[in-house]
Amino acid sequence: MREVAVVGIGMHKWGELWGMSIRDMFTIAARNAMDDAGVNNIDSMYIGCMSGGLFAGQEHLASLMADYLGVLPAAAARVESACASAGLAVRQGWMEVASGISDVVLVGGVEKMTDITGEEATFALSTAADTEYEGYNGVTFPGLYAMMARSHMHKYGTTLEQLSHVSVKNHANGALNPEAQYPFPVSLETVMNSTMVAEPLRLLHCSPITDGAAAVILCPVEIAKKEFKDHPLVVITGSGHATDTLALHSRDDFTTIKSATIAAQKAYRMAGVGPEDIDFAEVHDCFTIAEIMVTESIGFFEAGQGGPAAENGITSREGAKPINTSGGLKSKGHPVGATGAAQIIEITRQLRGEAGKRQLDNPRRGLAQNMGGSGGSSLVHILEVK
Amino acid sequence: MREVAVVGIGMHKWGELWGMSIRDMFTIAARNAMDDAGVNNIDSMYIGCMSGGLFAGQEHLASLMADYLGVLPAAAARVESACASAGLAVRQGWMEVASGISDVVLVGGVEKMTDITGEEATFALSTAADTEYEGYNGVTFPGLYAMMARSHMHKYGTTLEQLSHVSVKNHANGALNPEAQYPFPVSLETVMNSTMVAEPLRLLHCSPITDGAAAVILCPVEIAKKEFKDHPLVVITGSGHATDTLALHSRDDFTTIKSATIAAQKAYRMAGVGPEDIDFAEVHDCFTIAEIMVTESIGFFEAGQGGPAAENGITSREGAKPINTSGGLKSKGHPVGATGAAQIIEITRQLRGEAGKRQLDNPRRGLAQNMGGSGGSSLVHILEVK
Repeated sequence: MREVAVVGIGMHKWGELWGMSIRDMFTIAARNAMDDAGVNNIDSMYIGCMSGGLFAGQEHLASLMADYLGVLPAAAARVESACASAGLAVRQGWMEVASGISDVVLVGGVEKMTDITGEEATFALSTAADTEYEGYNGVTFPGLYAMMARSHMHKYGTTLEQLSHVSVKNHANGALNPEAQYPFPVSLETVMNSTMVAEPLRLLHCSPITDGAAAVILCPVEIAKKEFKDHPLVVITGSGHATDTLALHSRDDFTTIKSATIAAQKAYRMAGVGPEDIDFAEVHDCFTIAEIMVTESIGFFEAGQGGPAAENGITSREGAKPINTSGGLKSKGHPVGATGAAQIIEITRQLRGEAGKRQLDNPRRGLAQNMGGSGGSSLVHILEVK
Repeated sequence: MREVAVVGIGMHKWGELWGMSIRDMFTIAARNAMDDAGVNNIDSMYIGCMSGGLFAGQEHLASLMADYLGVLPAAAARVESACASAGLAVRQGWMEVASGISDVVLVGGVEKMTDITGEEATFALSTAADTEYEGYNGVTFPGLYAMMARSHMHKYGTTLEQLSHVSVKNHANGALNPEAQYPFPVSLETVMNSTMVAEPLRLLHCSPITDGAAAVILCPVEIAKKEFKDHPLVVITGSGHATDTLALHSRDDFTTIKSATIAAQKAYRMAGVGPEDIDFAEVHDCFTIAEIMVTESIGFFEAGQGGPAAENGITSREGAKPINTSGGLKSKGHPVGATGAAQIIEITRQLRGEAGKRQLDNPRRGLAQNMGGSGGSSLVHILEVK
């Protein structure tokens, strides 16, 4: 197995982009990544997209994007694992490069979510849950995460203030990210008084509906050292992928994300490190409770300590374990098929020292955790600067 | 790179299966494949599905199927390349086993197409074409393939009789396949007088709308020889993947499938063989003209000779180059996300000598060609019995 480097990263400003089609967004992000790497061609590509059909009326996306990127007849595959689709694309690309099958692989994701109505988008997102059971009974994701939040509050005493601190922190970070959809700070009071969505989750505990794309270029370390633009060498040292039931009602425990735990254990083992060795992370804060549960599930904090960690500033940029310096899904936006690649981009930027006003002090090792649905799938990657 | 064997195959009778859900179908096919191999667990899985969202309101399929198969928390990925989705799943699984990352990988596909109206299904299928150009202008797949047929007729003198012979042949084969959706013969006269769909293509030149699933178990040859049930050893000796424009209007030539040509060349090179060394093949006959074009594009016949080959019986079971002994998409059915895996199953059955009444005389090497849309993607695999 060869070591795999991240040699190019690219995205664009995310938001409600009614003037851009799905092909525009992905092509721009991918071309930015190719320019960042200094390459003009690729051997193959993987594109994550959750529901090209329901959101944009367009499947068969990988071939379409290969055409518009000018890389035909390269092998191009679309992969899907709901909101973890781009994390899955990163893993597939890592596998293809590590195994020696290809040298230069583009991985990324895209979702065009605002060309349909809110009701249609809510349905499209609900197809990441178990349609025949959860969907049939009318539950959508705010409801599922609200049940997880209530369960966590009941078991560990997690408070609404703690959930709200996650949002305040992520908006404070996103305010420093020019590509974020909502690059502004919010106060604790504003979060706690925002419109109720699904008790106890209010509007500012929920990530938004977003149009966006993100892309990353992977290649073997030995080639990265010789070719491509002169960036600090960022290497993927761990990759883990695990699944769980789609349906929340099939799980033993609502207060932990088992797929995240298992995927992280696999990634830690591969990288030869533990959670204590990770300097910072991007985790899947589709709802504020998700960030709290994931930071516990991947071993950063004891069960029940994720909320206090957010409240006490441990997960802020100045804290011991900065989480979601990009603004996270909450402030940066959450184009579901693209999120996992944008996490890799933020980790790479921090490791290169290119994160601008939100730059951490000399981080060496970061982790990205991307998940589908209510945790039916998780992808975890560990990146290090060498 | 390790050699990869097919050690288990499973499907079920395809058709309009209103009593089975998408999870039922895939679970049955996958369990049949696991039973055929004699395994009770897998390291990971890839599931092809074209549009779980539009056809079944269910994305995030791979985790769902891993749960119902009882293999959680195994890594499970859904891949999509329109009607070539399962061919793509086979390739990803081959890559994962060949590279040494996993030993036992389940690959397959599923599509539940009949729970929505015909109009909705036509829209869902149209998302394999270029939605913003072809779809916007109202063309659907019968229209696209009709233009290709007209172009082929004009350039090479291909006749309606020749197109119709493809359907007669494939139904004659499918009549011997108990899992086919339409297991009955049709006469040349019936095909030529069937309802007009898109001039010159009539109903019996078109593959049907089908519910179905198919699954295959892959592992390294060295393990296949020691473990698993005692089947003849079938090995994947070539794999090729190539893309082309989704839009027909962007191509130089409507009479050839360039992605099939390139994917086949890659597979031939890997296997160290040429088209003349292939004993029989399953090719993507979504419309009768597609079979004619593909058999030319992958080098079985000179350009313009695919039609005469069908008419003269060269592609029948008794001919020099049997094509679609399973009945093909035309008679066996075409659940778009599953078709590519069912092709591998037919090749394996023939190579094992388990094809029953449609068994060929001691075939040694078969080829499967699976494509998306009007040829925007192609996957080609070569299998040999050792």
